[in-house]
Amino acid sequence: MLSEFDLIARYFVRPGHPKNRATLGIGDDCALLAQQDGMQMAISSDMLVEGRHFFVGADPRKLGHKSLAVNLSDLAAMGAEPTAFTLAFSLPSAEEKWLAEFSRGLFELADAHGCELIGGDTTKGPLNICITVFGTTPTGEALRRDTAQAGDDIWVSGSLGDARLALGALYKEYELDAKVLAKAEGRLHTPQPRVALGLALRGIAHSALDVSDGLIGDLGHILKKSGVGATLHVDDLPAGPMLQKQSQDMRRRFTLAGGDDYELCFTAPVSKREAVLGAAMAADTVVTRIGSIEAAPGLRLLDQAGRPLDLNITSFDHFASP
Amino acid sequence: MLSEFDLIARYFVRPGHPKNRATLGIGDDCALLAQQDGMQMAISSDMLVEGRHFFVGADPRKLGHKSLAVNLSDLAAMGAEPTAFTLAFSLPSAEEKWLAEFSRGLFELADAHGCELIGGDTTKGPLNICITVFGTTPTGEALRRDTAQAGDDIWVSGSLGDARLALGALYKEYELDAKVLAKAEGRLHTPQPRVALGLALRGIAHSALDVSDGLIGDLGHILKKSGVGATLHVDDLPAGPMLQKQSQDMRRRFTLAGGDDYELCFTAPVSKREAVLGAAMAADTVVTRIGSIEAAPGLRLLDQAGRPLDLNITSFDHFASP
Repeated sequence: MLSEFDLIARYFVRPGHPKNRATLGIGDDCALLAQQDGMQMAISSDMLVEGRHFFVGADPRKLGHKSLAVNLSDLAAMGAEPTAFTLAFSLPSAEEKWLAEFSRGLFELADAHGCELIGGDTTKGPLNICITVFGTTPTGEALRRDTAQAGDDIWVSGSLGDARLALGALYKEYELDAKVLAKAEGRLHTPQPRVALGLALRGIAHSALDVSDGLIGDLGHILKKSGVGATLHVDDLPAGPMLQKQSQDMRRRFTLAGGDDYELCFTAPVSKREAVLGAAMAADTVVTRIGSIEAAPGLRLLDQAGRPLDLNITSFDHFASP
Repeated sequence: MLSEFDLIARYFVRPGHPKNRATLGIGDDCALLAQQDGMQMAISSDMLVEGRHFFVGADPRKLGHKSLAVNLSDLAAMGAEPTAFTLAFSLPSAEEKWLAEFSRGLFELADAHGCELIGGDTTKGPLNICITVFGTTPTGEALRRDTAQAGDDIWVSGSLGDARLALGALYKEYELDAKVLAKAEGRLHTPQPRVALGLALRGIAHSALDVSDGLIGDLGHILKKSGVGATLHVDDLPAGPMLQKQSQDMRRRFTLAGGDDYELCFTAPVSKREAVLGAAMAADTVVTRIGSIEAAPGLRLLDQAGRPLDLNITSFDHFASP
């Protein structure tokens, strides 16, 4: 049986990465990160619970990826550059194969973003993974939720709804062709955080957040915090490649309130349309203009012909749902 | 039923505290903390699992206290000044009474240390509490584990073993008088992190850590990382007031390997004995000299007469234990 210290040493302590920022990493009471005048540290924590955020028996390599990806997505939404993260997790037993695969998926994504594991905690218990991630932005340049302005365009990166499409099939809400499911599952299990786009949007976007609980609910946070309203052109929403083949009703529901998309929703002035497209190109990420911020409160949904839609959709709530 | 957002708004979002350091706190994708040249950020994460780190049905107010206390203890052990923390937790249901008491205990301790809640995550699942805490130290002044030197005195703060004494009684290993148990339980459920002492020891101690898994095991980390050995005078160890009344065997075992003490173990040169006592007085915390760091590897335990003791004690391991 692997001890807690052996487990950490074997799977989570690694030789120095060229971009290492920590003065002191794993193995002391705290990790130490250098600070710098004129910079802010962006910090986010996410907790993933087995049976709630991922299936019992989930592929550990993909789980390692996703655990960090959802946190990097929060940094992306602030326009922060990833620096480091801590990993605290409880697991029922120290299974070496699981740990090897989990740490592999975790570090593949961490290395792709130069993000260093600097500490954490491991304990025995129901499988639960809590990552806290750290990034940096020049003071005042972070992309916030409370700074959207009336007249802004609303944009979204990539595509929406394929993760939700896969989830429904896995929950047997409907059946999907095996190939379609396999592709949609990629979006569910290994989301790609839009870090490069978030960085490229600094100085261009007025506000941003990541779409994790569904576009309507997440955009609602921007509206509430900025004291504005919006109109969305529902049929302009970029449905994922697998969702595009489904019914209009499903497309609308899953793009508006699918969850687990990890795309960026952001607002920018009309005068910055070219700059937004340039940032998207630099970040090699598709972006789509989906609506407008308006002074009048509330969210108005319009169909292709400009007619109001009342879809009675709500976003995901971790306690309201069963 | 409280929604996730209502829950956060009602119990965890608070009016500004005079010492607030976060430019942006709860409610965006990330919190933002200002950085400053010449300072380092100390970071630590701990995860507490129901049935493992605390009893099922534990008093939520005490649990709120302890969840933050164990993290503040890590900052104390680095000589870092507490700044902020994130709280991620899963709980089976959003019970208002539990949340009110938990947040009360949490914020009572947070306010006592000027430590601000800046973000986190709440979700449904088996009760699990993960706090990541942030503190600051001037660059190069943190108290580390790898910097003990041969010839250093070994010191410990406060007293050891009362938490373990309470735990044994709660597990029915033995019976304790109700008053004795009540007092010992205070050490188990509401440990007081030695933050003031850690700060006072900067520039005086060569190395430090917090005693959470038992003195022998924790001191072992200093020895291993510093490449040194040590001699401990076992009968000089400061037993907790309740443990003092127990048998010599119990005193020895629980002071050496009790766990859950959250005292500081630190080393300092002999020339700094007066300075250590001055720091302890300034921090209003008792300290006891318990042994010496030596060049020869290994840990030697001596009794009151200076005779070697072989107690066959090991420290706590989260995976080795049942």
